[in-house]
Amino acid sequence: MAQQERAIETRRRLLIGAAEVFDERGYAAASINEIQERSGITKGAMYFHFASKEEIARGVMAAQTELPVDTRSRSASPMQRAIDLTHELAHQLRTNVLFRASIRLTVEQGTFQANDSDLYDWWLRAFGQELTRARDGGELREELVPEDVAASVVGSFTGIQMLSHVMCDRRDLHERLARWWEQILPGIATREALRRALPTGSPELGLTGGT
Amino acid sequence: MAQQERAIETRRRLLIGAAEVFDERGYAAASINEIQERSGITKGAMYFHFASKEEIARGVMAAQTELPVDTRSRSASPMQRAIDLTHELAHQLRTNVLFRASIRLTVEQGTFQANDSDLYDWWLRAFGQELTRARDGGELREELVPEDVAASVVGSFTGIQMLSHVMCDRRDLHERLARWWEQILPGIATREALRRALPTGSPELGLTGGT
Repeated sequence: MAQQERAIETRRRLLIGAAEVFDERGYAAASINEIQERSGITKGAMYFHFASKEEIARGVMAAQTELPVDTRSRSASPMQRAIDLTHELAHQLRTNVLFRASIRLTVEQGTFQANDSDLYDWWLRAFGQELTRARDGGELREELVPEDVAASVVGSFTGIQMLSHVMCDRRDLHERLARWWEQILPGIATREALRRALPTGSPELGLTGGT
Repeated sequence: MAQQERAIETRRRLLIGAAEVFDERGYAAASINEIQERSGITKGAMYFHFASKEEIARGVMAAQTELPVDTRSRSASPMQRAIDLTHELAHQLRTNVLFRASIRLTVEQGTFQANDSDLYDWWLRAFGQELTRARDGGELREELVPEDVAASVVGSFTGIQMLSHVMCDRRDLHERLARWWEQILPGIATREALRRALPTGSPELGLTGGT
């Protein structure tokens, strides 16, 4: 391996190890020694990449926002793409420790001194965009403001995944989201959009078994 | 003051001081020294009441579940009482540090070794009860399971208050909740219940200015 490739690989291992520790313990209780041991790299290599626990946490958060979570749905319906995005985020939460750690670092406000709203802002933009398209395409009830609906979706998603985490380690997260969409769609979708919408996500995503 | 009264007052001051520290820093970053200093009581008095940080945290959580948050609404409609309960919880979050600290101790899973689901269970029961009455009274759409709707309400409330906290220190929490109820009511309430429901809460609660 060339030296640069090795440095990239070391950085990746460090971020994964750090994400595991942050996900399990939260920021405040995570120790830099445990992060170093978990990732299996030397102290020297760690400090070559990151000067502090805070920098490592920023690295984990940054790696998360690079994830292309909003690209997999092939639905032509923006409302369906918004539904699909929640299931994709749920899938990431269940399978990607970098993503889980980022969520925990975000929701545990005040312990980690990053700008707490970065991840929320990113989600609000992603859902706001799809819901604006949904309004323009006649799928969102016209009396609603897309950004208000996006705020409800992001807030609800955040809390529903937490409840699912506490109750059963997120095993039923897709089902909880599907039920939530069934409940909220009649109030936000136009009649035609409601008729077409699949609360369990587009089947081609293969995330929930579909219906 | 009799000795027992003094002990009760000391315990109360300790729990308030601890709640302030837990609310600001989270469980892991809160130190027992800071809790003692913040509450202004002696180390001896503190250890008379609580042997450890974990015991103090349990005391804060226990004080929260004694709050009579579900008693103030005088609405005859169970659906309206469920709406009112979310606004009362929002009001507690904005004004009661014991309550805020309990929420933070609950949502920061894993750092504090209590049974993380206690507070959620309590809320799920409270909302499940009102929504079961709503179904029996013809206010909840009959194809829905009251417990499923309660799970969505509790999950959504949890996340929406977090988003409001990060964005503006919960200043707009009542407005966010009112918008969320406007969006979800058409999908869960019967036509008659929807017509009567006040998403901003019963005016006699005086929590949101009403509409």
